[in-house]
Amino acid sequence: MSRSPQHAHRPIGVFDSGIGGLTVVKELVRQLPHEEIVYFGDTARVPYGTKSRSTIIKFSLENVEFLLRFNVKCIVIACNTSSAFALPTLRNYFKVPIIGTIRPGARAALGASRTKRIGVIGTQATVHSGAYAKELSRLNGRVRVTAQSCPLFVPLVEEGWLSTAACAQIARTYLAPLRQARVDTLVLGCTHYPLLAPVLQRVMGPRVTLIDSARETAAETRELLGRFGLLRQHGTPRHRFFVTDEPERFRAVGRRFLGAPLARVKRVTIN
Amino acid sequence: MSRSPQHAHRPIGVFDSGIGGLTVVKELVRQLPHEEIVYFGDTARVPYGTKSRSTIIKFSLENVEFLLRFNVKCIVIACNTSSAFALPTLRNYFKVPIIGTIRPGARAALGASRTKRIGVIGTQATVHSGAYAKELSRLNGRVRVTAQSCPLFVPLVEEGWLSTAACAQIARTYLAPLRQARVDTLVLGCTHYPLLAPVLQRVMGPRVTLIDSARETAAETRELLGRFGLLRQHGTPRHRFFVTDEPERFRAVGRRFLGAPLARVKRVTIN
Repeated sequence: MSRSPQHAHRPIGVFDSGIGGLTVVKELVRQLPHEEIVYFGDTARVPYGTKSRSTIIKFSLENVEFLLRFNVKCIVIACNTSSAFALPTLRNYFKVPIIGTIRPGARAALGASRTKRIGVIGTQATVHSGAYAKELSRLNGRVRVTAQSCPLFVPLVEEGWLSTAACAQIARTYLAPLRQARVDTLVLGCTHYPLLAPVLQRVMGPRVTLIDSARETAAETRELLGRFGLLRQHGTPRHRFFVTDEPERFRAVGRRFLGAPLARVKRVTIN
Repeated sequence: MSRSPQHAHRPIGVFDSGIGGLTVVKELVRQLPHEEIVYFGDTARVPYGTKSRSTIIKFSLENVEFLLRFNVKCIVIACNTSSAFALPTLRNYFKVPIIGTIRPGARAALGASRTKRIGVIGTQATVHSGAYAKELSRLNGRVRVTAQSCPLFVPLVEEGWLSTAACAQIARTYLAPLRQARVDTLVLGCTHYPLLAPVLQRVMGPRVTLIDSARETAAETRELLGRFGLLRQHGTPRHRFFVTDEPERFRAVGRRFLGAPLARVKRVTIN
């Protein structure tokens, strides 16, 4: 990254398989209010979490290529599944700095945990990849990780079934092995999960710290941009959102994720 | 369709957004044991049920183009969402006979219903399209249709949560308006739903007739091929399966849909 002040005015590129990444955007907007964001959601091919490594890498490469058209100063992968599988390949292919969700989440979890018994929840693909367990072990050799895939959480969140008895019941089933392992910290390893935080906290109990990978990823982005003198210090940005399916559903569901209405959503074709 | 006996030996092409269409394959194999099937499942872009009309049509066109490479004698759309949106366009584009799920399901429902109060459940896209309601009204002007989208059913089926309390609870919530409308017949307007038949029957009660659109679509295919002298009368077919993502998950989950192991699954790229 160059320290040229001109670079600071370039936008941040953010991509996700669909809507979940908007929880990262919400945090970026909160922590970096002057930054302009170009968001790409691959809503025609969503979800990634049930798909294979090679498909996730292929889609992620195409997503970054799209964002590079906007002369972005860095790229944030606002998707744990894509971060878990595609980050090394993306860093090999592209010169632009790329920030994933795994390292920020793992670092925050180790900082919060007293017992170093850490739980991780995510999509089937993310958990299957072992990315969090590897990163946590790399950072601290004595950590004990219990990971659990929760494939029904994404549809429950997208359908707004957050405060239903069925959702609580499903959460109790998924989280049982983590409670049994007596983890003191739980990484929400999917950008959909911050919306489930109240029910997850209830099931895990008040003594377990939840780590929001969306918030930590935004914090890492702020730190990285600050270190390279690339922070935008003033101005009111106008964010842009691009999706591969019609914007209607993205606007409707996305509003709950962002906590604000979504303006300027445009459909694009990328392959 | 030509009546040439040579044509009878050509395979039947079947496509679906992913795995659900295997319930149609299961019925085709049962009702037409000598027919050879070429199945295409778009597992890299699954699901279609939460996506828009234009995306569903685009993907469906690509799927049919793929199947035409196999010199198929007809094409079965083993997906209610694709049938609901893409059938007219597909029939405009291609000469090959194409069978959808909507008409067979609607016809069977009208045959079974005494009161002509008919319920339809399906994906968000299928219900939003109004395809069943339109077809039912076209066939019988006095029918009263109550349609309900059940977006959580597909993930529940794919994850194997069929006999859980959470699944029963979600089913009760979704089916409440259909019980209130006192339908006497319920169309399972998604090829995933036959696996939910026991729980749906329990919630609706024993007096409600469930219409399995997968079974009815296979029956329509048999009738159509018979009418044109295109039935294969003997031989043991070897079916082939093509998917756009890696075959592993398709094989694992698909086995429950087909009720038999899946041999000969190959990954292909179509765009």
